[in-house]
Amino acid sequence: MLTLYYAPGTCALASLLCLEFAQARCRVERLDFTKQQQRSDDYLKINPRGRVPALVTEQGTLTETPAILQYIAQTHPEAGLAPLDDPFALARVNEFNSYLCATVHVAHAHGRRGYRWADDEAAQKSMQAKVTQNMADCFAIIEQHMLQGPWVLGERFSISDPYLFTIARWLKGDGVDVNRFPKVAAHLERLGNDPRTRAVMERNAN
Amino acid sequence: MLTLYYAPGTCALASLLCLEFAQARCRVERLDFTKQQQRSDDYLKINPRGRVPALVTEQGTLTETPAILQYIAQTHPEAGLAPLDDPFALARVNEFNSYLCATVHVAHAHGRRGYRWADDEAAQKSMQAKVTQNMADCFAIIEQHMLQGPWVLGERFSISDPYLFTIARWLKGDGVDVNRFPKVAAHLERLGNDPRTRAVMERNAN
Repeated sequence: MLTLYYAPGTCALASLLCLEFAQARCRVERLDFTKQQQRSDDYLKINPRGRVPALVTEQGTLTETPAILQYIAQTHPEAGLAPLDDPFALARVNEFNSYLCATVHVAHAHGRRGYRWADDEAAQKSMQAKVTQNMADCFAIIEQHMLQGPWVLGERFSISDPYLFTIARWLKGDGVDVNRFPKVAAHLERLGNDPRTRAVMERNAN
Repeated sequence: MLTLYYAPGTCALASLLCLEFAQARCRVERLDFTKQQQRSDDYLKINPRGRVPALVTEQGTLTETPAILQYIAQTHPEAGLAPLDDPFALARVNEFNSYLCATVHVAHAHGRRGYRWADDEAAQKSMQAKVTQNMADCFAIIEQHMLQGPWVLGERFSISDPYLFTIARWLKGDGVDVNRFPKVAAHLERLGNDPRTRAVMERNAN
């Protein structure tokens, strides 16, 4: 049995959705970030970095969304969530997921968590001021070069799709109108209307 | 035949080393960042994001270090560079690689490339001032929680090792004494003394 540590509004939604699409048996533990539960002694024993997602498996605890997503795909092959036997196609999945975690998520994080990279408030405000432009630039690249459509890999649905959906939902709060990117907007609507996505969102109030 | 687009001093060294350890047939194209060759029209056709590494394969071009490294491992299984058939161990590899690309590399990048996240110089200087602390914090986590020793996965060498080696080499320039982290220091020395590593470094003047 798996346990996913999750918090609403975070990138942990991608893992939660992939677990749902894999029909995985999984318990969900919600952390309340407004109460700083991710910094509690109990949680730091699970993930010393104090972040979500963390997926507790029988072999140990995994963190980092790209690693968790491929793990879910590889341990639930019947769900067909990644082209496991096609190294190039799997690399496309991981290229996309790496771009989301190392560039797009990082661009977004400068809006609210600039304290990670600078101590003074003026610098943090300066970072906030650039978030809209950076997120728009990232999604222009996704729209033009990466999202083949209708899904990230083209006709084939994969773990990259719930991850894109998760981060594209942040655009509005970051001051970017998703309709500037028609393929991304269609992707967001398509996956948002999937009954499994709706069930996850309702259960977890994301 | 593969072609790797590479520049000295960048994270592309991880891909170059993994190609060497895989005994892959690969041509290396060096870009001179001091001449802004990564922004040339020719290179932007290869990688529209203007970054290295980019690995040109017969099926298309791959970017993002974690994706390239797993691709090298999966297409050269005889080299044994990743536990491809053990989903949990492979997830550990990808967890480590994701942490390097999305947290450690990003922490380092705020030293010289703060312009990505803030326009004004004062903010960029404020980011620079925090790089030493952030890199030390990241490597404290690697030392205490992630690097099992002697290799990242313990006894088994993997694609995570050249990646760690590549980024640990940046510590000195970031003002961090690697000897604060004995396991990381030993890892850096162990892989640096490998004749294959030395051959790559000599050929590519990194």
